[in-house]
Amino acid sequence: MFKPLLSLTGGLIATVAVGIAQAKPLSQEDLSVAEVLRDRALSSSNAYSIVESLTVEVGPRRAGTEGDQRAVAWAQEKMKALGFDRVYTEQINVPRWTRGHAHAQVTSPFPQPLVVSSLGYSVATPAGGLTAEIIEFPDVEALQQAPAKQVEGKIAFINKRMEKARTGEGYGPAVQGRSKGMRAASEKGAVALLLRSVGTDSDRFAHTGMMSINAIENPVPALALSAPDANLLEAMLKRGKPVQVKLDIDNQRHTDGPSFNVIGEITGREKPEEVMIIGAHLDSWDEGTGALDDGAGVAIVMETARLIAELPERPRRTLRVVLFGAEEIGLVGAKQYVDAHLHELDNIVAVSESDFGAGKVWRFDTRLPESKFDIADQMMQLLAPLGIERGNNTSYGGPDSSVFVARGVPAFGLYQDGTDYFDYHHTPNDTLDKVDPENLRQNVAAWVVMSFLTTEMEGNLGRVPTSVK
Amino acid sequence: MFKPLLSLTGGLIATVAVGIAQAKPLSQEDLSVAEVLRDRALSSSNAYSIVESLTVEVGPRRAGTEGDQRAVAWAQEKMKALGFDRVYTEQINVPRWTRGHAHAQVTSPFPQPLVVSSLGYSVATPAGGLTAEIIEFPDVEALQQAPAKQVEGKIAFINKRMEKARTGEGYGPAVQGRSKGMRAASEKGAVALLLRSVGTDSDRFAHTGMMSINAIENPVPALALSAPDANLLEAMLKRGKPVQVKLDIDNQRHTDGPSFNVIGEITGREKPEEVMIIGAHLDSWDEGTGALDDGAGVAIVMETARLIAELPERPRRTLRVVLFGAEEIGLVGAKQYVDAHLHELDNIVAVSESDFGAGKVWRFDTRLPESKFDIADQMMQLLAPLGIERGNNTSYGGPDSSVFVARGVPAFGLYQDGTDYFDYHHTPNDTLDKVDPENLRQNVAAWVVMSFLTTEMEGNLGRVPTSVK
Repeated sequence: MFKPLLSLTGGLIATVAVGIAQAKPLSQEDLSVAEVLRDRALSSSNAYSIVESLTVEVGPRRAGTEGDQRAVAWAQEKMKALGFDRVYTEQINVPRWTRGHAHAQVTSPFPQPLVVSSLGYSVATPAGGLTAEIIEFPDVEALQQAPAKQVEGKIAFINKRMEKARTGEGYGPAVQGRSKGMRAASEKGAVALLLRSVGTDSDRFAHTGMMSINAIENPVPALALSAPDANLLEAMLKRGKPVQVKLDIDNQRHTDGPSFNVIGEITGREKPEEVMIIGAHLDSWDEGTGALDDGAGVAIVMETARLIAELPERPRRTLRVVLFGAEEIGLVGAKQYVDAHLHELDNIVAVSESDFGAGKVWRFDTRLPESKFDIADQMMQLLAPLGIERGNNTSYGGPDSSVFVARGVPAFGLYQDGTDYFDYHHTPNDTLDKVDPENLRQNVAAWVVMSFLTTEMEGNLGRVPTSVK
Repeated sequence: MFKPLLSLTGGLIATVAVGIAQAKPLSQEDLSVAEVLRDRALSSSNAYSIVESLTVEVGPRRAGTEGDQRAVAWAQEKMKALGFDRVYTEQINVPRWTRGHAHAQVTSPFPQPLVVSSLGYSVATPAGGLTAEIIEFPDVEALQQAPAKQVEGKIAFINKRMEKARTGEGYGPAVQGRSKGMRAASEKGAVALLLRSVGTDSDRFAHTGMMSINAIENPVPALALSAPDANLLEAMLKRGKPVQVKLDIDNQRHTDGPSFNVIGEITGREKPEEVMIIGAHLDSWDEGTGALDDGAGVAIVMETARLIAELPERPRRTLRVVLFGAEEIGLVGAKQYVDAHLHELDNIVAVSESDFGAGKVWRFDTRLPESKFDIADQMMQLLAPLGIERGNNTSYGGPDSSVFVARGVPAFGLYQDGTDYFDYHHTPNDTLDKVDPENLRQNVAAWVVMSFLTTEMEGNLGRVPTSVK
């Protein structure tokens, strides 16, 4: 019962129409408290302060780097300062890599420099660089199907454009070239891969990102080209003469090393062993300051927990904020987390992650047993006034959450407007100025509704079908 | 008389209301031809092809570099292909400089890399770089007025923001820091200058550009910071601890060398010695491909001349397209051009330059004797339908044109919408995709009206007051 809160917040609490109370899983009182939290979120600028602090005081924090270590220290200090009950880390093991210089230039027929960025874990060129003719493919499938003798000794250039969409749905098709392109280039005897950036901007930034690098015998250097540079190569090739490019790349792969998932808890008052996980990832790519990806998410979930910790009473079950390490290089932190927590998976009542920038939440997706849909419907009463519509039940809850969902953990997805997200994603241009403080407030308001009601509700959410056998 | 044209263009020619013909300086026939040319410009994509060719086949072309040499060759070939009567070059003398690497990073209290670009002709740091505390100034005037002992041994950081405006009027105040900042830093004993970029974007591009470098005894390295990086330093400084930055810059100044103004003429049929100059500058900064600055201008004036050259008859006087060299480093080509052409200045009836990007023309400014205002009024009849309003009589006709105007040559200014121009100006992001083909057509339409009528009209435009004694 929330008597202390009710008296504390007094007149602030508006009546939420929930029909006949006993027929619904969420109580009128819980909804009223959630509404107060929502409105507090809308007038707090603390989430913005958190992402400001992370980007200014830490900045780039690729897994396994010194920046990553600083981020881990920062996150623990910040959670303690915000009033979490328990703050701790869990070590994970991450592959490490040093990014050196990446110089590229057309040497013939029209000498010009190109703006490129090494894709994650790309090998170097031979010292002094390599020069070869480029051969263009509309997508990775075309490269995979090309006769090897057409490709041998050349630089494969995958020139696929990504479509812009609020849902970010252009990413899936476009990212194939990044995940599989280097392997395909290597198998066809290409000496390197040049990839039109997986991005929706037309700025001269190359978008880095992870490749699939496992079990490739002869990895070749792999680079993203900015959109204007891909246009340039395309225009040169249209003129019909061979286009020669010189690449000079200096990267290094290292042995694995430690990183950490950083965890902060608001301990449940009645069922502390039952846990809702709300996550974001702490690591970032190394060319920007990771404001959108995923500083905003870090800020949203930390501020959500802080608002709940400010209540006079702890919620019924535990709210666990997990800042995953090494998400960018393959959900490394989430996979190792789940492996280490198999024993308590049944007690994880739900999972959700914020990792799609800082746009307004516009849709509330779920992955729940059908019998629990009415809980989502009740949450919608408080989410709808934030401009959020009810979505589908196929949410995977965010990238890291998907590892939990695959094992039957129910998930919530507060879908952000991602129209501009891939303009900045994985570029040097992912910086604080791209975060709108107003949008961030709206995000926290939605998150605190969902998180409070899930940790406070009487029943639980059951399990969803697993995809891991 | 334009009989052949009139019969050629036949039904295309609409009637232009000009009142009583003999009271007006421009004839009905000339206005009719100008209208045909305007409408041809609106349906031609040739200007876009020209800027595409320059950016793809040449790209960066800073004065005195190999790219500059390629641009000079490209311009001559292109003018010949477009049907100019005479194509030639005039040698100029330019200071030369090599841009090496520019690395900057905060070393304490929050280690992070910074995105910077050397300002034009910046000296290098000592080998291995230099590390010093930064000291912030709101503008160059504050640095000039600071006590030297506050500044000595530090890196001066000028943190002035530029206002966005259609007219670009924020540039004047903001650019003071770039032109005078390094001198002021040197005089106060600073070890380097960091300047918030003179630009209106919030992207992680530093804006390079020229400094005043004459007669500075102890030049210090001078760098532009991207706006997000200037924000970052500002945010770190607000935390109250000293901020240390390491700079590692590798540039080199050289002895002067040759470059060229490239000139193409459509020779006048009656008064070939009387000349209208329409100009743009051929050089660009070296980090972008110079699409907006000033590939668009090059394309606009070349296409204007080509359209006039397609007429069955040459206009009465000569139309001279001058592609100035070395504009970016101090109007070098224009100054040397005027010095070499003092003998014919009286025969230069008017000058105009396109050098403000590729936005739509929205205003028609002039610098004419008052007695000639009616000519501009008549031109306005054909410009107004393009969405152009009549402006003022204080135009300097563009940067290079200003050297002519100072000596009494009348000028026209077709003012472009510059709202976004300084988002891209002098950055790697000045690339072809920023040029809107539709806007380019509208520009050429306005230019061809002004250029045809000025080269064809019966009388001339007189002189304007000189500012050079």
